[in-house]
Amino acid sequence: MYAFGSRGNTGPNFNLLLLIISQLGLHTVEGVWPLPQALASSAERYSLNPQAFDFAYGKRSAAQQGCSVLDAAFKRYFTLIFQDYTSGRWNTGLETFSQLVYQDDSGSYFVNKTEIDDFPRFQFRGILLDTSRHYLPVQAILKTLDAMAYSKFNVLHWHIVDDPSFPYQSYTFPDLSSKGAFHPVTHIYTQSEVRRVISFARLWGIRVLPEFDSPGHTKSWGKGQSNLLTPCYRGGTPSGTFGPINPVLPSTYQFMERLFKEVSSLFPDSYIHLGGDEVDFSCWRSNPTVRSFMQKMRFGVDFTKLQAFYMENSLSVVEVWREGCYLCEVRKVTKAGLRVILASPWYLDQAGPKHNWARYYSVWPLAFKGSEEQKKLVIGGEVCMWGEYVDATNLAPRLWPRASAAAERLWSDEKQTSSVAKAFPRLQDFRCMLLRRGIQAEPLTIGHCQHEYLGV
Amino acid sequence: MYAFGSRGNTGPNFNLLLLIISQLGLHTVEGVWPLPQALASSAERYSLNPQAFDFAYGKRSAAQQGCSVLDAAFKRYFTLIFQDYTSGRWNTGLETFSQLVYQDDSGSYFVNKTEIDDFPRFQFRGILLDTSRHYLPVQAILKTLDAMAYSKFNVLHWHIVDDPSFPYQSYTFPDLSSKGAFHPVTHIYTQSEVRRVISFARLWGIRVLPEFDSPGHTKSWGKGQSNLLTPCYRGGTPSGTFGPINPVLPSTYQFMERLFKEVSSLFPDSYIHLGGDEVDFSCWRSNPTVRSFMQKMRFGVDFTKLQAFYMENSLSVVEVWREGCYLCEVRKVTKAGLRVILASPWYLDQAGPKHNWARYYSVWPLAFKGSEEQKKLVIGGEVCMWGEYVDATNLAPRLWPRASAAAERLWSDEKQTSSVAKAFPRLQDFRCMLLRRGIQAEPLTIGHCQHEYLGV
Repeated sequence: MYAFGSRGNTGPNFNLLLLIISQLGLHTVEGVWPLPQALASSAERYSLNPQAFDFAYGKRSAAQQGCSVLDAAFKRYFTLIFQDYTSGRWNTGLETFSQLVYQDDSGSYFVNKTEIDDFPRFQFRGILLDTSRHYLPVQAILKTLDAMAYSKFNVLHWHIVDDPSFPYQSYTFPDLSSKGAFHPVTHIYTQSEVRRVISFARLWGIRVLPEFDSPGHTKSWGKGQSNLLTPCYRGGTPSGTFGPINPVLPSTYQFMERLFKEVSSLFPDSYIHLGGDEVDFSCWRSNPTVRSFMQKMRFGVDFTKLQAFYMENSLSVVEVWREGCYLCEVRKVTKAGLRVILASPWYLDQAGPKHNWARYYSVWPLAFKGSEEQKKLVIGGEVCMWGEYVDATNLAPRLWPRASAAAERLWSDEKQTSSVAKAFPRLQDFRCMLLRRGIQAEPLTIGHCQHEYLGV
Repeated sequence: MYAFGSRGNTGPNFNLLLLIISQLGLHTVEGVWPLPQALASSAERYSLNPQAFDFAYGKRSAAQQGCSVLDAAFKRYFTLIFQDYTSGRWNTGLETFSQLVYQDDSGSYFVNKTEIDDFPRFQFRGILLDTSRHYLPVQAILKTLDAMAYSKFNVLHWHIVDDPSFPYQSYTFPDLSSKGAFHPVTHIYTQSEVRRVISFARLWGIRVLPEFDSPGHTKSWGKGQSNLLTPCYRGGTPSGTFGPINPVLPSTYQFMERLFKEVSSLFPDSYIHLGGDEVDFSCWRSNPTVRSFMQKMRFGVDFTKLQAFYMENSLSVVEVWREGCYLCEVRKVTKAGLRVILASPWYLDQAGPKHNWARYYSVWPLAFKGSEEQKKLVIGGEVCMWGEYVDATNLAPRLWPRASAAAERLWSDEKQTSSVAKAFPRLQDFRCMLLRRGIQAEPLTIGHCQHEYLGV
């Protein structure tokens, strides 16, 4: 058998899987999630013998013998496919293949003759994890990466720090976590733990995009770095409280430069997400030093100019992400020539009957009036799992399988996947497969899976 | 030290815990959940040495040497209290005591001098688990019993069968589960598994109240028992579909008698819940045999009379539970002289920001206009975890700690526990304790616990 694959994080992925094996009987698998761009399945089935089964590099494949990511993936997917034979992973082509293998009642493995031509609709398919509002143990992050790969997500947007806590252990500024984390030892991510997450993700074909949100959302930063936050004033005197990062001090920019130098050397991804959202200007406005700086810079009373000054001066790499009402906002932003990653329709930290999978499936990223050029600026989307009410206890069932609904929207052809009713049985099957692979994916409706979740 | 306890399932529980040990220092534990009726804590603290620690029967205690439930509880609570020393369970008095023990930074165990006088406000404090809409593995039920005891729940209302599946394996009618369960082997409860649940619950002081809902909610019953359900008619001929249990055939009552004889011998509890809710009369109405039976019985067109006939004739023990708008309905039912168990305000299968713990805490079971006699008829309440969207993957985080909010309402003095704001830090502490004991209780808000959930 032949597996052709190319890891494509920057350009569009292209995976072609052609299966030619000895023929057998009837039967077929319900489907593959997310749906490949083209899948022609036949009733011809081939028996797979785990003892004789092997993966091989296609002659025309860009990747050849010795590719560590693919070799590791072969090993993982062997276990995933032949779970009963062994007792769990690579690229999206292997994921598709693994979903096509099934067992008969006697436990023998089969795959039907299938031709697949596949590539992702959007290049950016992310999940945001928030490790500041609640600390997520590394094990929970790794488990999420497993499940992300099963749904062909390729970006972990790690919202690592925020107001409540600073769990990132910086070697340049160790006080940031020793004073700003929930606990200086048990509730931090050491450099080696971060590296472990990154290398684990890499083997799954997943980028790790760190976010260090500033100048707002930085309360926890102030605990370990004095003179970083703006002292707020009340009635002409300091009130004892602090606001956003202080944009008027040169020391601020020296600090940010050193921090981001460290962060960008640790995270191999070419992007760092810089937040810049929800900045409360009232504290800046109250501070007389900030006000005189505004005058000196001729910003008048427009604090957005001060924020822009801060963003430009503190940062070397900037990627602007816009969120909001997903059709009007996308239209506006693409019209301005900016690239867009859709997040607002996929805030999965919300639970309840209105926030079901069908809601997240029925998102149409390109259904706005705009030119072809504008539509090309929509590079993808991400599922946001904000941490106010989410930690390791409920992360998995809140993410899965609802995030998988968003994943199919980001991967598959919209015309083939516009029907909630048609998707339903495939997603139910996919959810059962997640359970079988140990992912605590919650049920969609009344029913059962052959292998129920037993990890209680 | 002395522990006085009496298991009180029928009458009100009364637990008195008096701690007199060698004195030491300062410090205190945040609190106990649910709040005891009277708790006077002092700053005097006593050191607890696990190697010398023992439980003993109080001289005035109703239970004496050789009580297997208490002996087992002593053993379990020893492990729960001294988790680091060993690496645990019984009665509510022991639960309270276990929550008062704390460790200093060096790992030594302490308890402050504390006098407690306690008893439950309501005798019936239940949780409904639905094992028909989704099958819950026995392990998930046992884990729920653990967590129930920690919150002083004392009734597991086991909604064991319903329309979607019949997982109870009857030895009298084995076809009920072999044909009516989701799977005849993997998705059933054998007699020995049911006995295991009952005896496990007993050691926790928890009753197991089985529910076999009829005559409606019985679609799964019909798969393994022919001629049990009413054939529905359309246009004068059988439509091929079936409705509620057929109330006009003598064979129905013979079947029900034999089934309930078996069930009541397996479940030691003196009550069996018989449902009787949401009966759809349209199928009965369509059936000519049922209509002529109605005429013969002079029921006219009042199908509630037929339902009453069914309930009276098929059943030997009946307990009527009423649910609904919890103040008007409770008033109405108690006025009729019937006992009430409150369930409607505690449908915890619902998720989302509106369904938070504070909503379930702010339930006032006796805040209706009525006589003292009426109020005494409110014997308790129960948390309902219906299974449409719940299985073992999300049961625990959906139950805990929200069910604990209801538990305090059912156990503690309402005057002392009317403030959501005051309860909040205690419930946060309690939730962290649940995590430490391995219960996957979800977070209430932003923050952390010393021991996060690691079972991913």
